[in-house]
Amino acid sequence: MNPVQPIQDPAEIVAAEFSQRVRSYFEKLQSTICSALEEIDGAGKFGRDRWERPEGGGGLARVLEDGAIFEKAGVNTSTVFGTMPASIARKMNVEASGFLATGISLVIHPRSPMVPTVHMNYRYFERSDGDSWFGGGSDLTPSYLFKDDAVHFHSTLKNACDSVDTAFYPRLKKWCDEYFFIPHRNETRGVGGIFFDYLRGDVEKHFTLTRAGGDAFLESYVPIVRRRMAEPWGEHERNWQLLRRGRYVEFNLVYDRGTTFGLETQGRIESILMSLPPHADWRYNVQPLPGTREAALVGVLKNPKEWLNS
Amino acid sequence: MNPVQPIQDPAEIVAAEFSQRVRSYFEKLQSTICSALEEIDGAGKFGRDRWERPEGGGGLARVLEDGAIFEKAGVNTSTVFGTMPASIARKMNVEASGFLATGISLVIHPRSPMVPTVHMNYRYFERSDGDSWFGGGSDLTPSYLFKDDAVHFHSTLKNACDSVDTAFYPRLKKWCDEYFFIPHRNETRGVGGIFFDYLRGDVEKHFTLTRAGGDAFLESYVPIVRRRMAEPWGEHERNWQLLRRGRYVEFNLVYDRGTTFGLETQGRIESILMSLPPHADWRYNVQPLPGTREAALVGVLKNPKEWLNS
Repeated sequence: MNPVQPIQDPAEIVAAEFSQRVRSYFEKLQSTICSALEEIDGAGKFGRDRWERPEGGGGLARVLEDGAIFEKAGVNTSTVFGTMPASIARKMNVEASGFLATGISLVIHPRSPMVPTVHMNYRYFERSDGDSWFGGGSDLTPSYLFKDDAVHFHSTLKNACDSVDTAFYPRLKKWCDEYFFIPHRNETRGVGGIFFDYLRGDVEKHFTLTRAGGDAFLESYVPIVRRRMAEPWGEHERNWQLLRRGRYVEFNLVYDRGTTFGLETQGRIESILMSLPPHADWRYNVQPLPGTREAALVGVLKNPKEWLNS
Repeated sequence: MNPVQPIQDPAEIVAAEFSQRVRSYFEKLQSTICSALEEIDGAGKFGRDRWERPEGGGGLARVLEDGAIFEKAGVNTSTVFGTMPASIARKMNVEASGFLATGISLVIHPRSPMVPTVHMNYRYFERSDGDSWFGGGSDLTPSYLFKDDAVHFHSTLKNACDSVDTAFYPRLKKWCDEYFFIPHRNETRGVGGIFFDYLRGDVEKHFTLTRAGGDAFLESYVPIVRRRMAEPWGEHERNWQLLRRGRYVEFNLVYDRGTTFGLETQGRIESILMSLPPHADWRYNVQPLPGTREAALVGVLKNPKEWLNS
């Protein structure tokens, strides 16, 4: 069953019932997540920066900076539509047409090196010739490895995927390890999660998958924050975290499709680069000593694990 | 006059008298610059990290970290040769052949936000079919604008260029403004300098230009360091410097040809990313207030100036 019908006028897409449901879901999820994160943080508050795209649509950027637990957290939604800019059509290797893109994008950089960075993004894209797809996922990037955290994160996402189709998790877990890979470092960005892109076909099923992933976010991440936020750390751990954040910057600016696509197509720069950490470091040729916790993390990044089978 | 003769064997290139002269010049310049910078810094010392490339050649990375004046400074040389990797030939849109590349690359990130970041790079590339070229230049990236510094920097480079050919400076100054441009920020990386690439033809003349630029480096930069290192600054200025360094990271990872080329062709990663600052920040949507020193800098970056005609 595919409720998307070929339509020609971008205005028709925007009015279409299906894309409105998707958009509404993302906007509610944004609000739910921001409230929950503010409650955990206890001090930081998310701003509300509403912006418009002159050619159609806009978004709501919600960023929390300098919180007690979260050093920087961004939870953005946007819905843009109109005639597809030539630059985007070229990148997608399609004819320009009417389009609508709606999505939610989240990146959390906690203050403590013991609390992992997390990313979640879900998006729906529709073209006026009837083509449409979902993309997204969620992945965890620790500076220090706690196996229990990786297992909890993956297990929660697996349950979410399984509620829709048990074929999803193994496929999306592998896709995530392959996508969040930094070739020039020969390591993954973190301990993975799930990722998918250009999921075409049964849009109702894929919307259900997207909702399952979005709804599972707080359950996948909040318990990890709660059990790690009191772990002790000092300057040594902070310095390592800042170097790992440097890798995060390298991945996002060099390889992340959403980021490079946004930069090349003149997207809203402050929303696109919300994902970058508040502080990041680069030092020359740092190699963790064998046997250290830092080496343990790098070992796992160089050899992605099946967290639920070990 | 072009002393490069068509040769087939990469070993012949390495032995060739011209490329040896170029390489020697770069290695002496590296040593001279490192000594001078250590003297100014008074505390920091450059390490010596010699590396080999399994397929031919290698380099000497010299990095100073946590100095008194220089927070991070790298002055690297490398000379690599052999059969051109297929990935590089594809990038250059040429047939694979024997090749030799020799170069010097320098980036200095001073501790004080009042002392500008500087970059210098000169390189010579030769193919066994006889094609060869020089590339390089030098550019200044202040966090706070001091017009005198920009004028001194440009004036020194202009004198160096003029000593070879008065046509060079206007051409290379413009090239620099165009090259060190960050499209997604609609601003240049800094206040410019000179830049050239794929300079073919009279290699002796271009080697003379390269030497003039390399020899002028200390004169172009050291007086600026000396007159700005005692300027007062505090947390406000430091925070702005860290945001500006974020822009430096954005340019280098997204647009810099040397960096992206190195990443795509599996170059030595620690040498390639030596250019990244020791610390960099990203905050959401920071816009300097009109009339501030921060706004004055951004104004110039959005409208590159002719420093020597105003």
